[in-house]
Amino acid sequence: MTVGRTALVTGGAGFIGSRVAAQLQSAGWTVATAGRGCSVETITCDALAGMGQKIDLAVHCAGGASVAMSIGDPSGEFAKSVPPTVELLEFIRRHHASASVVLVSSGAVYGQAASFPTAETAPTQPVSPYGLHKMVMEDIGRFYGRAYGMRIAIVRLFSVYGEGLRKQLLWDASRKALTGDLTFSGTGSEVRDWLHVSDASSLIALVGCSASPEAPVFNGGSGTGSTVATVLERLFRALGVAGIAKFSGAVRAGDPVSFVADVRRAAALGWAPRVALDEGVTEYARWFREHR
Amino acid sequence: MTVGRTALVTGGAGFIGSRVAAQLQSAGWTVATAGRGCSVETITCDALAGMGQKIDLAVHCAGGASVAMSIGDPSGEFAKSVPPTVELLEFIRRHHASASVVLVSSGAVYGQAASFPTAETAPTQPVSPYGLHKMVMEDIGRFYGRAYGMRIAIVRLFSVYGEGLRKQLLWDASRKALTGDLTFSGTGSEVRDWLHVSDASSLIALVGCSASPEAPVFNGGSGTGSTVATVLERLFRALGVAGIAKFSGAVRAGDPVSFVADVRRAAALGWAPRVALDEGVTEYARWFREHR
Repeated sequence: MTVGRTALVTGGAGFIGSRVAAQLQSAGWTVATAGRGCSVETITCDALAGMGQKIDLAVHCAGGASVAMSIGDPSGEFAKSVPPTVELLEFIRRHHASASVVLVSSGAVYGQAASFPTAETAPTQPVSPYGLHKMVMEDIGRFYGRAYGMRIAIVRLFSVYGEGLRKQLLWDASRKALTGDLTFSGTGSEVRDWLHVSDASSLIALVGCSASPEAPVFNGGSGTGSTVATVLERLFRALGVAGIAKFSGAVRAGDPVSFVADVRRAAALGWAPRVALDEGVTEYARWFREHR
Repeated sequence: MTVGRTALVTGGAGFIGSRVAAQLQSAGWTVATAGRGCSVETITCDALAGMGQKIDLAVHCAGGASVAMSIGDPSGEFAKSVPPTVELLEFIRRHHASASVVLVSSGAVYGQAASFPTAETAPTQPVSPYGLHKMVMEDIGRFYGRAYGMRIAIVRLFSVYGEGLRKQLLWDASRKALTGDLTFSGTGSEVRDWLHVSDASSLIALVGCSASPEAPVFNGGSGTGSTVATVLERLFRALGVAGIAKFSGAVRAGDPVSFVADVRRAAALGWAPRVALDEGVTEYARWFREHR
């Protein structure tokens, strides 16, 4: 990336956004952040315009981050995800029309895909409001590319994990395991494509260079599926917990059975994930023991 | 339609919504309205729930109604169109899950279509924020059908006109013509598919019976294209204005060159437009002279 320019990261205090901000900073960017816990708290066109800096790159990490919450409160989670996307794109269109915009989306837009690994050309048919909101975000981004010639890139992240994530499978399982409770919902045979947050943020930073009015889409995953049971086995080992996970067998609403990314497009940019699952889970367990 | 049941019409004080409400009432429905100028002013899940009635049919006419305004203020027009759609669908899902929902969309979702007349299976690639917002509305509606089994139908209206419409081509042209100004933007050769509002509302009321989780889409047009120049010629004749329209030749942003509906799906329901263009324009001119 070009050094000495300014990036805006929305959701900059969040799990992924904070890593992206740090990664850009260490690459020489000046970074402004917006969203909850950031210097600009509300993501509206007017609030962002008040910042004054010239923006060269906007990375949109803000938005709902939980399938389960989106099922419980579809309109509340919609409000977190979709209107801020419109506001950010309007801000860029009006004030920084030559900036690149990276929209951080999710593999959840595919819903239950028909084939694995799933390529970016697969149809989008989300099965959760979370996936719907990301799909709508993407559609709005594509429109801004097509109608206004803005430079857009979309990254569809799969199951991102890593130190600092205080929710989802690894967090919940670590907490339960240390109390001796090894029972989990689901079947354990759900296949997910796990990507360490440092690899997700390196991809996000990289695709800024590919942003164009055609709004190219890049899957962000490892390209390899692992079952939930396998991941928990590694986690328990790393935590020093004896025993294996038991599963209720009940499938959760909005949870696709399988979920693996075809990452050849991202690989063609020169990107590759660097943190293997074993290593990442071991680091997560170490972090958890220190920070629980 | 079944008699003695209750319908909710959003945008019920608007040009199309008021006609739909009247049509349903005359067919024996009890009609509640929501939106600006209605008994429930704000379209939110909570405000709608406060009405208390059991709803059997919801017709969603509320939302932005101007391509030009959407170009001038994309985020303001987004706010009028998309969040109320989420709120209405949430209200129906939570409180009246067996109701049918008709989403009133627009042919603008096609953008500049590749072939004419344009069928419902054509790709959606809107060229204005207005068309984008309608497309997003449709996508959200389809999700509610797929994910929650709700009964949805979508009507894509083309160029709806009729007595009471105090904007767009016929209104602007009538006002200008009576001042002797016969110059217009565009080329005059833009082709539009004109549909009288009484035919639009009869189609909207009819498709409620076809609502299903598959969210079928029905074009609403006459199936015949007429140029802007032709329509103005008829309008001037009906107004008793001598002379013919002159055009600037400049194409307006967000205006597709051509726009004709394939209406075979609606025809298969037994629907047909009943007001011919000549007759409709003549009635419009009569109304305009009485109400200007």
